[in-house]
Amino acid sequence: MRTQVAIIGAGPAGMFLAHLLHAEGIASIVIERRDRRYVEGRVRAGVLEHITVDLMRRLGIDARLREHGQVHRGTNLSLDGRLIHIDMAALTGGRTVTVYGQQEVMRDLFDAAEARELPIVWNAADVVCEGLQGNTPTVSWNDRDGRHTLACDFVVGCDGFHGVSRGAIPAERRQSFERVYPFGWLGILADVPPAGHELVYANHERGFALASMRSTTRSRYYIQCGLNERIEDWSDELFWDELRLRLGPEVAARVTPGPSFEKSIAPLRAFVCEPMRWGRLFLAGDAAHIVPPTGAKGMNLAVSDVLILAEGLGEHYRGSSAGIDTYSQRALARVWKAERFSWWFTSITHRFPDMDGFDRRVQIAELDYLSGSPAAQRALAENYVGLPLAA
Amino acid sequence: MRTQVAIIGAGPAGMFLAHLLHAEGIASIVIERRDRRYVEGRVRAGVLEHITVDLMRRLGIDARLREHGQVHRGTNLSLDGRLIHIDMAALTGGRTVTVYGQQEVMRDLFDAAEARELPIVWNAADVVCEGLQGNTPTVSWNDRDGRHTLACDFVVGCDGFHGVSRGAIPAERRQSFERVYPFGWLGILADVPPAGHELVYANHERGFALASMRSTTRSRYYIQCGLNERIEDWSDELFWDELRLRLGPEVAARVTPGPSFEKSIAPLRAFVCEPMRWGRLFLAGDAAHIVPPTGAKGMNLAVSDVLILAEGLGEHYRGSSAGIDTYSQRALARVWKAERFSWWFTSITHRFPDMDGFDRRVQIAELDYLSGSPAAQRALAENYVGLPLAA
Repeated sequence: MRTQVAIIGAGPAGMFLAHLLHAEGIASIVIERRDRRYVEGRVRAGVLEHITVDLMRRLGIDARLREHGQVHRGTNLSLDGRLIHIDMAALTGGRTVTVYGQQEVMRDLFDAAEARELPIVWNAADVVCEGLQGNTPTVSWNDRDGRHTLACDFVVGCDGFHGVSRGAIPAERRQSFERVYPFGWLGILADVPPAGHELVYANHERGFALASMRSTTRSRYYIQCGLNERIEDWSDELFWDELRLRLGPEVAARVTPGPSFEKSIAPLRAFVCEPMRWGRLFLAGDAAHIVPPTGAKGMNLAVSDVLILAEGLGEHYRGSSAGIDTYSQRALARVWKAERFSWWFTSITHRFPDMDGFDRRVQIAELDYLSGSPAAQRALAENYVGLPLAA
Repeated sequence: MRTQVAIIGAGPAGMFLAHLLHAEGIASIVIERRDRRYVEGRVRAGVLEHITVDLMRRLGIDARLREHGQVHRGTNLSLDGRLIHIDMAALTGGRTVTVYGQQEVMRDLFDAAEARELPIVWNAADVVCEGLQGNTPTVSWNDRDGRHTLACDFVVGCDGFHGVSRGAIPAERRQSFERVYPFGWLGILADVPPAGHELVYANHERGFALASMRSTTRSRYYIQCGLNERIEDWSDELFWDELRLRLGPEVAARVTPGPSFEKSIAPLRAFVCEPMRWGRLFLAGDAAHIVPPTGAKGMNLAVSDVLILAEGLGEHYRGSSAGIDTYSQRALARVWKAERFSWWFTSITHRFPDMDGFDRRVQIAELDYLSGSPAAQRALAENYVGLPLAA
């Protein structure tokens, strides 16, 4: 088997890349360890930056997004119940974010891939990439029929934080940067109307809470929790009580409780691998970097990675290596700014176990300052809607 | 002896307050532990926010400031030698800062106090304030002639971080917030032309450096140093070499080395006491709060405190207690924003002993983001020139 670009992983990074390459007339094959139902079923992010919305439009996969996506022109912070509204659109010259679940994005990507006959190999086990320093690397895997090998010009690792691609770069040729937060997010999904049209990021004495949604009838709520807490100890009732307390009376009054159909605890972690290229291997999305969910940068960073990479690969096939040679540097410049933003947004909204009175006062002062400063609000807003690609 | 307001300490807070009260027709006596020569000789801050410049103008003590003060319309950050210019005036609707040494400010305050016959008691030892919960508190002290007692309506503690006033508030009625930084600033004064008209705050792999000045012929330079370092180990030659390395080639080329006439190591510390009022005692300036010197907020916070307090005392003598009743809350709101800014500005420019690669990358990303974002630059600039009083 032979293709131009072998893509490992059929998550957002891999599937957006496959569509982008297809649009450029570049052949690719996506190799995925699980099946479509599994990938499409994963509960993940739900806030799309305008670059992601623009890309879906450009790829012609935005019909359902236009119908069901909720455009948010603003967002909210809450400090011990006091609401601070951030009018993102007014602050950024009209930019917005769109609430549309990653599960929906995946469905659109897969439906269009089927229609366009983009080749995807499902249930590929024991994936190995080799020859990355030569001109014809290979990706091989097992399925029921035995071992398969795909020869290609380039391999793109889009297989997430736990994938195999990153490990194909020799340990001494890459650097890892990591931050593990001393808390997690306990999140629920419930088919009840959300507490409002916009999100509320709440900093409360007892910890962070987030009022979010997937649609006008599906709510997504989170509360900060300890890393050792167990889901079994959080009945729906306890969750709703704690959530409403942290959101404060004004937002709590708009919360509609109801039975949760998904409840899970996610750790908060930041991670970056440098560089994002080694020979003929490129990393994109979670394979190269993860962010804490505060600010919803994860999937959007996967999109900016593959936008930069697809442009570089297009240039390559038109005769210039400039784009792929600067991919790692360009992608990382934007990644680190998003890491900084996610770190900062986490730090001003969460309760840290080792916080002392000084830290808490500084946190309150920062939110207080933010509430009165258009400049500080604009800085938050421009990061939240997504910094320009050519950062 | 009787007066309306007893002011403990003849530093910037105390002397600005004495002039402000005089302008309101309120009698005060300043009680100072040292003599004028000592207070005037202390090497301290040198960057005045516009509120401080405005106040000196309003008090009619700005003749020398107008002649010798250097108006700065911008400032600079440097990241491993790359300069980032912050056009403060353009970003804040024309606001600027003025470089004019605290020693010069003190001279102007004292000269005018003499001309206006504002009473100052020098060399007052063993100061004690009592009766602060009653209507007629007293301040007493020793001099060569024995013990003196001053009865008054209010006592204002302007006697600095090491002064006695703060301790007059019972320990259980006040809260202290503190942050001690794991490094200090090694600073020199030298009569050589500064490296440029504006300051340069440099973040270098080896640590922070600051190129500042007191006038067109007097330079003030600092480098971050360990808390255990000794001045004796830093010859002028070593200092200039390290300074130029950290400032980077572009700024280093403009540094004129020369013999230093002052060299000292100062620790970096943040401290806030809450509340800033107890009965008939008010705290102002360093007696209530100190900031690390990054961003030069110290003296300017003393000024905003006494502006708020003088207004409140004026209202009191006109029959309303609203101003003095809200003094602590209003002053602290601005203090904490300045604490936040000084903390942030320190955190993005210094090398912390426990920094790991992630922290360093986030620091670089923040400066990188700042270099390209007018919004982020505006947020920095509006804090640097000084937030509004009615914060």
